[in-house]
Amino acid sequence: MFKPLGSAVLATVLLTSGAAAQEAAELDPKIEATAQLLIEQASSDAIGLKFVEDLTTEVGQRLAGSESEARARDWSVTELTELGFDEVRIEAFEIPFWSRKSESVAVLSPAPQSLVATALGGSAATPTNGVAGEVVRFESLADLQAAPISKVDGKIVFIDEETIATMDGSGYGMGVRKRSGCAQAASDKGALACLIRSVGTQPHRMPHTGIMARDGAEGAGPAAAISGPDADQLTRLLARGPVTVSVNIQTEIKTNAPSGNVIAEVTGTDLKDEIILLGCHLDSWDLGTGALDDGAGCGIVVGAAKLIADLPERPRRTIRVVLYGAEEVGLFGATAYAREHGDNLDKHVLASESDFGAGPIWRFQTRFGEAALPYARTLQRVLMPLGVTPDDNRAFGGPDIGILARSGVPVVTPGQNGIDYFDYHHTPDDTFDKIDPEEFRQNVAVYAAFAYIAADTGWDFRKQPEPGSTGTE
Amino acid sequence: MFKPLGSAVLATVLLTSGAAAQEAAELDPKIEATAQLLIEQASSDAIGLKFVEDLTTEVGQRLAGSESEARARDWSVTELTELGFDEVRIEAFEIPFWSRKSESVAVLSPAPQSLVATALGGSAATPTNGVAGEVVRFESLADLQAAPISKVDGKIVFIDEETIATMDGSGYGMGVRKRSGCAQAASDKGALACLIRSVGTQPHRMPHTGIMARDGAEGAGPAAAISGPDADQLTRLLARGPVTVSVNIQTEIKTNAPSGNVIAEVTGTDLKDEIILLGCHLDSWDLGTGALDDGAGCGIVVGAAKLIADLPERPRRTIRVVLYGAEEVGLFGATAYAREHGDNLDKHVLASESDFGAGPIWRFQTRFGEAALPYARTLQRVLMPLGVTPDDNRAFGGPDIGILARSGVPVVTPGQNGIDYFDYHHTPDDTFDKIDPEEFRQNVAVYAAFAYIAADTGWDFRKQPEPGSTGTE
Repeated sequence: MFKPLGSAVLATVLLTSGAAAQEAAELDPKIEATAQLLIEQASSDAIGLKFVEDLTTEVGQRLAGSESEARARDWSVTELTELGFDEVRIEAFEIPFWSRKSESVAVLSPAPQSLVATALGGSAATPTNGVAGEVVRFESLADLQAAPISKVDGKIVFIDEETIATMDGSGYGMGVRKRSGCAQAASDKGALACLIRSVGTQPHRMPHTGIMARDGAEGAGPAAAISGPDADQLTRLLARGPVTVSVNIQTEIKTNAPSGNVIAEVTGTDLKDEIILLGCHLDSWDLGTGALDDGAGCGIVVGAAKLIADLPERPRRTIRVVLYGAEEVGLFGATAYAREHGDNLDKHVLASESDFGAGPIWRFQTRFGEAALPYARTLQRVLMPLGVTPDDNRAFGGPDIGILARSGVPVVTPGQNGIDYFDYHHTPDDTFDKIDPEEFRQNVAVYAAFAYIAADTGWDFRKQPEPGSTGTE
Repeated sequence: MFKPLGSAVLATVLLTSGAAAQEAAELDPKIEATAQLLIEQASSDAIGLKFVEDLTTEVGQRLAGSESEARARDWSVTELTELGFDEVRIEAFEIPFWSRKSESVAVLSPAPQSLVATALGGSAATPTNGVAGEVVRFESLADLQAAPISKVDGKIVFIDEETIATMDGSGYGMGVRKRSGCAQAASDKGALACLIRSVGTQPHRMPHTGIMARDGAEGAGPAAAISGPDADQLTRLLARGPVTVSVNIQTEIKTNAPSGNVIAEVTGTDLKDEIILLGCHLDSWDLGTGALDDGAGCGIVVGAAKLIADLPERPRRTIRVVLYGAEEVGLFGATAYAREHGDNLDKHVLASESDFGAGPIWRFQTRFGEAALPYARTLQRVLMPLGVTPDDNRAFGGPDIGILARSGVPVVTPGQNGIDYFDYHHTPDDTFDKIDPEEFRQNVAVYAAFAYIAADTGWDFRKQPEPGSTGTE
């Protein structure tokens, strides 16, 4: 079982939290009891955890557009069908494809030595024999952008900015700017290639890949990340004098590669046309096995939906699980889903997404209509004994459901503690052993509880105040 | 400054330690005061730490027999000369040379996926196109050795034994048996190759290399280590059914490659022919930059010797620093030293070695003549405020000075806490950032203090009891 917070703690937090100023909506005791049963059952979840274990073992990495991603779709269809989900299907689409074939980065002088590097997703290839040049170091992307062409032309750029580890991933958001912008800014000024300090937060020689830009399979120039210790080494060498490095990146690109979203449902009863969407993404980067990013998310939403499916009675609305394809390389699955279901978004009564690893959920944000906030309070009250703090109504939603949120679909964001997420994310170390089963199961409990309540109450999360009302009574 | 233990703690430990049953020898107050000054100066050591920083930055990895190891010798000669050491020289020898050119290990079926692998030192090459076969898994080397040929012939062996992390490295000693024995045992039974679970103790995809056997540059068959998470993955796959893997290892070997020991001295005064030898090894494996193994050891002994050299008065005996070559691939430097100095071993009054990372020293072992044990007690008394526990008279010495100890040279072993040493050792992660400066400086303090006392007292550490004596009075 999860460790519940004492009621004294609960009372204190509820009283002092601004988010809890509104009254909660009443919840049918039968629905509440069922939600509690789901939470209890989630504490020994086997289905969700096995889903991510099997996916990462039996398929492994799932690079968008690759044969591995295709195998993952087929594997998921088989698995979800065997689990008894309804309407299991693939919604196919095509994407531009990029894959690394090889990469190497080495110091040539003053002392020949290899650096541990990984090409960034979408990096242009170098000529077959690579490029070599003197390194010019910048503290940040802004410094590179501000530099005169004469300082950069013919050189190999190195941006040495560190990523700060934070619970909510905000440090990553800042750190990723150099990953997105370096190749373009470097190429614009005549650089031969760009190296960045890995966006990851761990101290190992384990560089972090990730997409450079969303405008196609191949970007502006060759770009690679070097690990933190390698960035330190390069900086120490530069402190001693000029440094020459070689960069060789070979890639494979295709214009039209297959991808797709895998969809499975727990069909509702009298309100079955109304959809609670629970998302994750099926693709991963190629270095690890995509356990935290985002096998875990898929295991969490599949595990939660399966617990609901196995209840003696189905809830009124339909729970739709969407395993998005091609998230990592530009949210192609999200776009495809919005295109495919654009006519029907008003029937999407709630959406949520799990794509931040398997750390414990510590807060619960919503993005509801103003008059639906009492529903948020009720969901938060039910989740609080799981250690989840009520939070504001400014939920972003998540990468894949962001497009739905921007179209007015109400969303909730169960916020995970991601303080160590970027220790593993997008590196070879994103493997199954990094998932803590107890923390994973707390996630399953949260998703099962809110999704069930949303499905069986029939609450309107879009609800706006009546004309003339203050909206806060 | 280091945190000294309170005197009440000291008294208790001294009284309850069996090793402290003998009385300490008297120490000239002037020598004791100088030893305390060295300990004080070591707490802000800059020379030793800079030696390892510069070596690992300006040279990087130093694979035995490679051009990098040769550069490290030249670099060390320059550096030690600039530091003012006497008699700085290289004693050259030749070794069989092995180097990895490339390695790859991948699951072919049931689900194609790469495994993170590193060839073991001395691995035979596979044919150019590699080998492929079904995996047969064993829990230990003993299980492989006991298996019938029919179970192994034509297969790829996988030994999945874990290494236990221990303070004194005893877990590594056990873990390394499979590294030494797998290729031979597998080849003897017709296996195509051997894979072992990495001998390292960390949870990352960072496999640990190391020598297989000491009988030449290339061993019995192809052999590689896969990281812990990859071993887990292979085991999970095998639990689901047959698994086929490919192994491709390409190597470079040479019969006669150059190596050498670098020697530098702090010449003594009236007893300058008597030598206190402080050792470390200059070569490293090729994956990291050899910071913990054994750049740190070299920094510690160089730092300690330099503090002694800078005293207003030189001690009576000579301090000889030996940076051994080609330790990793078979203790070739140790053998060469013993060959070169075999006539003069009786003038080696004490030897010690630092080759276990940069963790804090927690105990102090000796291997002295029985009547010299009061000298051990005195050294231990002086070191105890640094957190060093007196220990027994069964010191092994260390890999490189073991041959001297077996020839009767008295040795001391300052035992470091190596609980996390095998998290980094022999992996790409053995880099400068893994050294804790304060812990490193405690090592410098210990080496400086005991070496100085041994050099200036003129004590005979070989001393045996007078005939007819019990040796314990």
